[in-house]
Amino acid sequence: MSDDRILGIDFGGTKVALGLADRDGTLLATRRLDTDAHAGAEQVVVRTLAAARALLADEGAAPGRIGVVSPGIVLPDRILLAPNVPGWEQLHLAELVAAEFPAVPISVGTDAKAAALAEWRWGTLAGADPAVFLSLGTGIAAAVLVGGRVLTGANGAAGEIGYNLLSPQDTEGFASGAAPLEEAVGGRGLGGRASELLGRPVTAGELFALAKENVEAKELVTAALDELSMHVANLAIALDPQRIAVGGGLVRSADVLLPALADRLAHAVPFPPQLVAARFDQDAALLGAVALALGG
Amino acid sequence: MSDDRILGIDFGGTKVALGLADRDGTLLATRRLDTDAHAGAEQVVVRTLAAARALLADEGAAPGRIGVVSPGIVLPDRILLAPNVPGWEQLHLAELVAAEFPAVPISVGTDAKAAALAEWRWGTLAGADPAVFLSLGTGIAAAVLVGGRVLTGANGAAGEIGYNLLSPQDTEGFASGAAPLEEAVGGRGLGGRASELLGRPVTAGELFALAKENVEAKELVTAALDELSMHVANLAIALDPQRIAVGGGLVRSADVLLPALADRLAHAVPFPPQLVAARFDQDAALLGAVALALGG
Repeated sequence: MSDDRILGIDFGGTKVALGLADRDGTLLATRRLDTDAHAGAEQVVVRTLAAARALLADEGAAPGRIGVVSPGIVLPDRILLAPNVPGWEQLHLAELVAAEFPAVPISVGTDAKAAALAEWRWGTLAGADPAVFLSLGTGIAAAVLVGGRVLTGANGAAGEIGYNLLSPQDTEGFASGAAPLEEAVGGRGLGGRASELLGRPVTAGELFALAKENVEAKELVTAALDELSMHVANLAIALDPQRIAVGGGLVRSADVLLPALADRLAHAVPFPPQLVAARFDQDAALLGAVALALGG
Repeated sequence: MSDDRILGIDFGGTKVALGLADRDGTLLATRRLDTDAHAGAEQVVVRTLAAARALLADEGAAPGRIGVVSPGIVLPDRILLAPNVPGWEQLHLAELVAAEFPAVPISVGTDAKAAALAEWRWGTLAGADPAVFLSLGTGIAAAVLVGGRVLTGANGAAGEIGYNLLSPQDTEGFASGAAPLEEAVGGRGLGGRASELLGRPVTAGELFALAKENVEAKELVTAALDELSMHVANLAIALDPQRIAVGGGLVRSADVLLPALADRLAHAVPFPPQLVAARFDQDAALLGAVALALGG
């Protein structure tokens, strides 16, 4: 049994990923399970911890550290800003994990911020200062790294750009339960509007593919990219990053997404940053949990 | 002669301010002169240095350190992003000052970032982390302090939000010589539109006063505040600051400006930051030069 292994756990809105990694961020074994959030938040944690025990037994390993990530701001007695995971907000996440692994140091954090840390440690953001990680999926979030440290903000809420207002006349916003930018360009909002438009269930990824032949789909994608790229450009103007890495589900449409973002950055930002697809795709937040456990 | 005195110099678009200060940021003596930028950039520096010599002679002081601030990014052989000061961009500013004071350590920097440092050291941003200083005047800029250090960005251009795009369809931007947000809500742009509207020269400050009785002036002010407050809210969402201090000429209309910004922050930002008028008004950048010389 080696205790230089790190157990990472990524609680997502639809899937939970867990993995055993070494200190270099190499995943030695992974497991995935469904979140089944509608069945309650605690059952997810119970099933996940059982899966972690089984994984560790199979590998003959005991973790030296544990990193746990989730959408939102993970506090001792609740999780804030995690509206995409029903029932999640009342969860005592760190406590439940600590009860299972009482002697092991546990780090908890926000998935997008942790993913940024993994990109900085082992991926495309290495050496970039400042660096921005954009998480474009069901949720829309950013994480800013200065000197390799994630800016958390005064309340852990830095980078939650899904709440960005869209226009000077926007009267919807966080206080009225809205996340304007996320609803406009996030995977769920985009898929929903595409499904309405085309009269059948369409995901955001399918919409991007359809846009190559269907005029209405193309218009929807263009409007979303115009909106998104304005917000990314304004963020880059504010931070003057050296490099931006784009992760999250939408990056699977990188052939359309990245050129649109790059054009806007070149046009609007005094010193346009480098723009790259993140190295880690499906395992980004899981490796983020590992990076978080390693500190940074 | 005491060498714990600091000489601060603030080169602005219309005025230059210089002052002798102690290490606590108390200005012991100040001088002001016109920039006369149209007569060339070097003559301003020559006249300013002569005024500095006279000031030091009058006070019987020799500066232990010198801080110099200007709009834009001050590099050894030019100044970038300073379009409001004609002729300024080719200036070897630090070199000219060093030639006059060869043995004295000289710090040069951007006025808004230095002003933020002064607010953090001696003013309303003390203890706030992260903190944002908004400079709303002829130019529009922000400075972000994390742990009391100003974020400069990869090229010194962080916070230059005057270049922000206004809408997803915005085709004007830095690359086409535009500064969309600054033109929309900066003092010069606002004064220009007010003058057109009312058929006589009106400053932005006068416009804010007129808006209390004149419907058209009120509409112009409302539109500008809607625009500005959206950008400030989105910046606050990205950074999750504990406190925002507003400085610059427009803060003289704080009775109208601050409530509009506070309303929008309360509406849009998950954790609305405190919002205050900066402590330092006319001398903000001059004290910033002093703070810059003291390090930080």
